[in-house]
Amino acid sequence: MTDRNRLIYLPLGGAGEIGMNCYVYGYGPAGKERLIVVDLGVSFPDMDGTPGVDVIIPDVAWLEARRDRIDGIFITHAHEDHVGAVGHLWGRLQAPVHCRRFTAIHAMRKLEEAGHDIAQVRVAPVWPEAVTAGPFTVQFTPVSHSIPEASALVIDTPAGRVVHSGDFKIDRDPVVGEPFDEEMWRQIGQDGVVAYICDSTNVFSRHPGRSESQLPEPIGELIAGAKGLVVATTFASNIARLKTLADAGMANGRSICLMGRAMKRMVGAATEAGVLTNFPRTLSPEEATDVPRENLMLIVTGSQGERRAASAALSRSSYLGHEMKEGDMFLFSSKTIPGNEVGVARIKNALAEKGVDVIDDSHGFYHVSGHANRPDIEAMHDILRPRIVIPCHGEYRHLREHAQLALAKGMAGIIAANGSMVELSGNAPGIVDYIEVSKTYLDGTAFVGALDGVIRDRMKLALNGLVAVALIVDEDDLLLEDSWVQLRGLPELTNGGADLAEMIEDELASAMPRFNAKTVNDDDKLEEAVRRVIRQVCMTEIGKKPEVAVLISRLMAA
Amino acid sequence: MTDRNRLIYLPLGGAGEIGMNCYVYGYGPAGKERLIVVDLGVSFPDMDGTPGVDVIIPDVAWLEARRDRIDGIFITHAHEDHVGAVGHLWGRLQAPVHCRRFTAIHAMRKLEEAGHDIAQVRVAPVWPEAVTAGPFTVQFTPVSHSIPEASALVIDTPAGRVVHSGDFKIDRDPVVGEPFDEEMWRQIGQDGVVAYICDSTNVFSRHPGRSESQLPEPIGELIAGAKGLVVATTFASNIARLKTLADAGMANGRSICLMGRAMKRMVGAATEAGVLTNFPRTLSPEEATDVPRENLMLIVTGSQGERRAASAALSRSSYLGHEMKEGDMFLFSSKTIPGNEVGVARIKNALAEKGVDVIDDSHGFYHVSGHANRPDIEAMHDILRPRIVIPCHGEYRHLREHAQLALAKGMAGIIAANGSMVELSGNAPGIVDYIEVSKTYLDGTAFVGALDGVIRDRMKLALNGLVAVALIVDEDDLLLEDSWVQLRGLPELTNGGADLAEMIEDELASAMPRFNAKTVNDDDKLEEAVRRVIRQVCMTEIGKKPEVAVLISRLMAA
Repeated sequence: MTDRNRLIYLPLGGAGEIGMNCYVYGYGPAGKERLIVVDLGVSFPDMDGTPGVDVIIPDVAWLEARRDRIDGIFITHAHEDHVGAVGHLWGRLQAPVHCRRFTAIHAMRKLEEAGHDIAQVRVAPVWPEAVTAGPFTVQFTPVSHSIPEASALVIDTPAGRVVHSGDFKIDRDPVVGEPFDEEMWRQIGQDGVVAYICDSTNVFSRHPGRSESQLPEPIGELIAGAKGLVVATTFASNIARLKTLADAGMANGRSICLMGRAMKRMVGAATEAGVLTNFPRTLSPEEATDVPRENLMLIVTGSQGERRAASAALSRSSYLGHEMKEGDMFLFSSKTIPGNEVGVARIKNALAEKGVDVIDDSHGFYHVSGHANRPDIEAMHDILRPRIVIPCHGEYRHLREHAQLALAKGMAGIIAANGSMVELSGNAPGIVDYIEVSKTYLDGTAFVGALDGVIRDRMKLALNGLVAVALIVDEDDLLLEDSWVQLRGLPELTNGGADLAEMIEDELASAMPRFNAKTVNDDDKLEEAVRRVIRQVCMTEIGKKPEVAVLISRLMAA
Repeated sequence: MTDRNRLIYLPLGGAGEIGMNCYVYGYGPAGKERLIVVDLGVSFPDMDGTPGVDVIIPDVAWLEARRDRIDGIFITHAHEDHVGAVGHLWGRLQAPVHCRRFTAIHAMRKLEEAGHDIAQVRVAPVWPEAVTAGPFTVQFTPVSHSIPEASALVIDTPAGRVVHSGDFKIDRDPVVGEPFDEEMWRQIGQDGVVAYICDSTNVFSRHPGRSESQLPEPIGELIAGAKGLVVATTFASNIARLKTLADAGMANGRSICLMGRAMKRMVGAATEAGVLTNFPRTLSPEEATDVPRENLMLIVTGSQGERRAASAALSRSSYLGHEMKEGDMFLFSSKTIPGNEVGVARIKNALAEKGVDVIDDSHGFYHVSGHANRPDIEAMHDILRPRIVIPCHGEYRHLREHAQLALAKGMAGIIAANGSMVELSGNAPGIVDYIEVSKTYLDGTAFVGALDGVIRDRMKLALNGLVAVALIVDEDDLLLEDSWVQLRGLPELTNGGADLAEMIEDELASAMPRFNAKTVNDDDKLEEAVRRVIRQVCMTEIGKKPEVAVLISRLMAA
């Protein structure tokens, strides 16, 4: 290493996956760079890989070890996959958190819930004003997305300008928030951009993106034709959509009622931040029970099929005094995120059983994406003409496709998945190091490493069931023949109709007298011998090899 | 009940879900009907709801109790969700199994694997020939689908004609098998159809279905443009697709190699049944290693992201001597079944990491569905003009939509989910009874009822982890203070850095002396008291309430 200053980029989350965004920029001599962090997001667990986990957060061990070099944390917008981990991780990083006002309301709440000082959150001005953090000058630059005050970051360093796109789309009429400002972006690009680190989620969508402003008309027509109660769901944070939905309801003679905590919190925050004006007056769920159903519209949480949200509750039974029935309409003004299909279908089917007409976005009329499609990504490439394009916010296949787009236009396209440190400065920009990064699970109140084996053990329990057995070795080092067996997640009866636990106890009683002293006196050997007997019995009797927990009590002479 | 004969329909699986098809028709006096069974299919487990389960089969308790009244089992086609449970359930139903030749090869193998007599499988002739089973005369009537020899059943009874659609599409040029024969269907419908029980899967797809014959051209062009190795995946049973893919490979100078057991078994069965002719000569994976990659095409299993199939293996590393690399192409000539999105994306990402170009059906060029879209469903309604339409093979929302289609055309549309017994005869056809039906899980070699709680217990283990604890009550009914704790799926350390198991043992040691004799002498009370202590400790230390298994050993005076 030399003392030559360099500019580096290091994704710790969000590159090679959708969710859990966390990116690092550094400037200075190699190994001594001053650092800024962009976004501290979460991703969400599932039964498939992370059962019981509350939320997944980035592994910031690398950053924590360099905490004294962090000059600031910058949050691009208030979606959970960008801001969700700020409360969980601030204590380990301890740097000022910069974001725009609407985002700040959320960041402060998260810091407060985690017991940190909310004064660490600084409300940032927008372009052309800037925030200085060490060698970095950062401009929050408004972009359209599906939440208010989403921002790209224009990051100026002694080694040149980097643009971090944040989540964005090109929308010249976004209903809420600033429209796409092509002239501003041309100015930003005119003096040269070293690297454009860019959202890749929709790179496979080949049609131009659609504007939020295309929705009021079809949604209005839909509601105009509705006879009974109308319920609509979308992401609570999609304030523009909430406004579109509420306005369409009002225009068709319906009172509006918001349901779901997140919904009310988001509207409150948007109003407080001044980004939402003219939102119709809403009724509480209780007040709304007095309104005839043909004059009522509920806007509710749970567009992704979450079991505890209002959508799911309404699909199952009555909720807060409201019950859907034959002839009502339920609108999903949303896209189903991959992995949530089954949960969403469960709600649609339950609603169909009630005779409710379910409308979703399968025909493309009632939802638009918040991310740039391929032509819009290309438009940004063309406006900024960066030397390097580094795709972020995408699975590996998105990063690759996006990098190829850039290469085809004569820019350097670098695929940098989580842990890949890229030098952006110098004559041959490229990956210069790989950092070991994993993920951290918040499980209850404990932080568990993804590679610790804890969650893997839980999945084994789910797949195989468990036999727990208690053994006693007496004061004379003799293994008692009686053992006590308990089953979890296994059938009580064998295929032959016998009691499985008793059969295991019997088999152990006949096998254990044959164990030699060396086995009996060694916990590991005894466990292994007992495990083998139990798995053999279960394989024979129910065709399955369960997990086995062996608890050995060794009695001491009094 | 009277002795009037009636005609009934009773779905036991497949109505209100996609998968696990099993339908019953009956004719005779109420409660004494003679019965036939149509299809004995399976559905597949997932971590979300059925971890560790091998396969899900219909709950046939109702049928088993009326086994002496079953005159035959009719299998419409060889997909697992129609024939997969025939081996598991034949022993409980014991009636002749009728199906066409290609299906029979699969049914026989399943009976054989389950230790039953393959002579129970009878190869059925096709329309206009018929099979007689009690009061039923059944004609296997060729339809196009995504597997050879798929059939509708034209079922004649003294109460009139019922048509069971099976899985079907309208394809006038299906590449393999019989084209749609409109004239035949008009003849079938001309004397009146009492009820049409009809596939509903694609009722929300509003465009006309596309023919298998539209694929050779785009697939051929795609392969013509490929530079490296070409790998394609589709369902092994989609023989027409295999032929389309293989022919396209051959036409572009590539030798063909099939990978995956199911693939070879299906091609073998299709050849044996005489439905597949002119399939190109294939190389073994070993022979194929000698072929330059630009002259080779692999056709492989695993289009749904199955972890153990050839697609997944090739995405991870080399498989049977073949390894994908930069510049190769991988084609998903398939649709991703809802619920499998994450597994399929995992493969696509792993391939992208290898630099492989992944092509899927997102643009609609390289796959066509095997099910009738809405216009084709309507076309069948119009041709047959049944009195009653009963949608089957769909989730509830599909059944409802399909029933509404029928109603809109002036036919009776009856939604009959699993367990709904419908009388088709008489003046007021409709649901006459509800049968309690659940699902049966094959778990290892054990049959476990969906409501038995066994699998629910496994999910609790996965969500919460487990603490197992062994306690000893001595010969004098005294609870020893020493306990032995084992953790499964829980962090070893508390948030404060202490050993969690030891901390639980310590807390128990200090709590247990306070238990009174009544608690100590009663297993249930003692368990409950210990469980409470353990859950309290864990809640405080890791923010989680685990499952607890308490094993009490009561020592007897010698």
